[in-house]
Amino acid sequence: MSLLVTGSIGIDTVKTPFGVSKNCLGGSSVYFSMAASFFTPIRFLGVIGNDCPFDLHEVFNGRDIDLKGLEVRPGSKTFRWQGSYEGTMNDATTDGVELNVLAEEPPRLPAEYRDSEYVFLANTHPILQQELLGKLNTPKLAVADTMNLWIENERDALLKLLEKIDALVLNEAEARMLTGTDNLVSAAREIIKKGLVFVVIKKGEHGTLLMTDKDEIFVLPAYPTGAVKDPTGAGDSFAGGMMGYLAQQNLIDLATLKQAIAYGTCAASLVIEDFSLHRWQSAGITDIEKRLEQLREMMQF
Amino acid sequence: MSLLVTGSIGIDTVKTPFGVSKNCLGGSSVYFSMAASFFTPIRFLGVIGNDCPFDLHEVFNGRDIDLKGLEVRPGSKTFRWQGSYEGTMNDATTDGVELNVLAEEPPRLPAEYRDSEYVFLANTHPILQQELLGKLNTPKLAVADTMNLWIENERDALLKLLEKIDALVLNEAEARMLTGTDNLVSAAREIIKKGLVFVVIKKGEHGTLLMTDKDEIFVLPAYPTGAVKDPTGAGDSFAGGMMGYLAQQNLIDLATLKQAIAYGTCAASLVIEDFSLHRWQSAGITDIEKRLEQLREMMQF
Repeated sequence: MSLLVTGSIGIDTVKTPFGVSKNCLGGSSVYFSMAASFFTPIRFLGVIGNDCPFDLHEVFNGRDIDLKGLEVRPGSKTFRWQGSYEGTMNDATTDGVELNVLAEEPPRLPAEYRDSEYVFLANTHPILQQELLGKLNTPKLAVADTMNLWIENERDALLKLLEKIDALVLNEAEARMLTGTDNLVSAAREIIKKGLVFVVIKKGEHGTLLMTDKDEIFVLPAYPTGAVKDPTGAGDSFAGGMMGYLAQQNLIDLATLKQAIAYGTCAASLVIEDFSLHRWQSAGITDIEKRLEQLREMMQF
Repeated sequence: MSLLVTGSIGIDTVKTPFGVSKNCLGGSSVYFSMAASFFTPIRFLGVIGNDCPFDLHEVFNGRDIDLKGLEVRPGSKTFRWQGSYEGTMNDATTDGVELNVLAEEPPRLPAEYRDSEYVFLANTHPILQQELLGKLNTPKLAVADTMNLWIENERDALLKLLEKIDALVLNEAEARMLTGTDNLVSAAREIIKKGLVFVVIKKGEHGTLLMTDKDEIFVLPAYPTGAVKDPTGAGDSFAGGMMGYLAQQNLIDLATLKQAIAYGTCAASLVIEDFSLHRWQSAGITDIEKRLEQLREMMQF
């Protein structure tokens, strides 16, 4: 099944203990699409300014990513993010952000995208996420990401969004902030009650926790890699692998969901081993599959 | 096989968001022994003052815990610890500590303990850990715990200890401190090189990472419980379950080690659901076994 993603396309400058990557390609929907396209065709929705030095047709060349929804807006400037990581690299520090075109009108939705059955709303203002959802025929599975900014400042809009989507993907600090509950298992249960079928809590190097509305729990460690260079895009690559596999299988039962989360975990473990999207120059679905089997083996008891 | 443990016996006062437990029984060897005794007979080595309000013969009544090595030292005072936990309860704050009898001579080793094949040296000064080891016939498996204090201030003694033992159990902050390496997988590899057969890094609510000298990795999430009341003793109960199972099986291959770590994980998940050792009043090996199967199920993909 086709999978629609909307999110940011960014020009990133990232500093980690392993180096600096200046003005490289980033953005949630870009990371997401690269990982998801190993599994299923992607419908890409996003907007850049005509200053953008990256040609996404070239970047995505050879992948089944439909760029009809990519709008290049004359006179506008592309979103930019500057960030850095230290120590355990579990948290990014934002050193600078220029919203630019992201502060303008959202990209136009091509009519052909309306019947998308699988939809991922990468992190953006919850009102924009709702608006897009309103333009689609009812998808089979709509999943959103969010961030601390909206949890703190746009709580009502976010809570309304949760009633309209099927699932939420967020990190552990956000889950605690959203619920005011420190225990993650309890926090996951509270989030589900806000109207979701499932929630996935991302714990970075510590893996993920899935909770469903039937109180089913899945816990998965991260794939243990000693070669982390740049964690940027880990969460979006995780979501890409997960959503890509679900759309490929066109099934949302617990067994498929678990498998999907394992695929997302392995996709994320690869992308963080190099800056920007460079790791995908040498790695692909074979590497993701290989890590999936290794992870299964490493967890078996 | 019999399992020797030496560590602290303490009078604890613990404060968590779920209440306060004043002057309750604690100490590493007490938590360890309770969990380990579900699997194998224990040889207990420790010292208290004659002020101690707890009768360990009563506390351990019905369990196969040999208390010949429990020394009640007249005129001495029992070790006391005051601690508190906030928020995620991942880290204890020490609000007060009175070493008392722990700052004196270590307890006398009964001659019958010398042939112990499985040995757990709970956290104490690495020189004391070495001295005890020197009094034993060569055990089949000697495992130690340690803490930040010794990593910072007694590094040489600790490194000498590592050459003499088979395995180390420590938490993630300690693993990073010991190696100066932020990535946990790399840190585990570096620790192994200091002369160990395996190392277990405890990550609290995030589970454990095992690394062996053959570069085998085992990653296990914690058992997801929403009912955490007091994390005190989690690490020692984990070690107790792990060592207890290894001694019971009398086997230290990878498959047994994985199973042992899973047992330790489930034992720890129970003890933290109440203050002090209260959870063991209603829970036992049946509950540990049940959680083991649930955890296996929750991780399967």
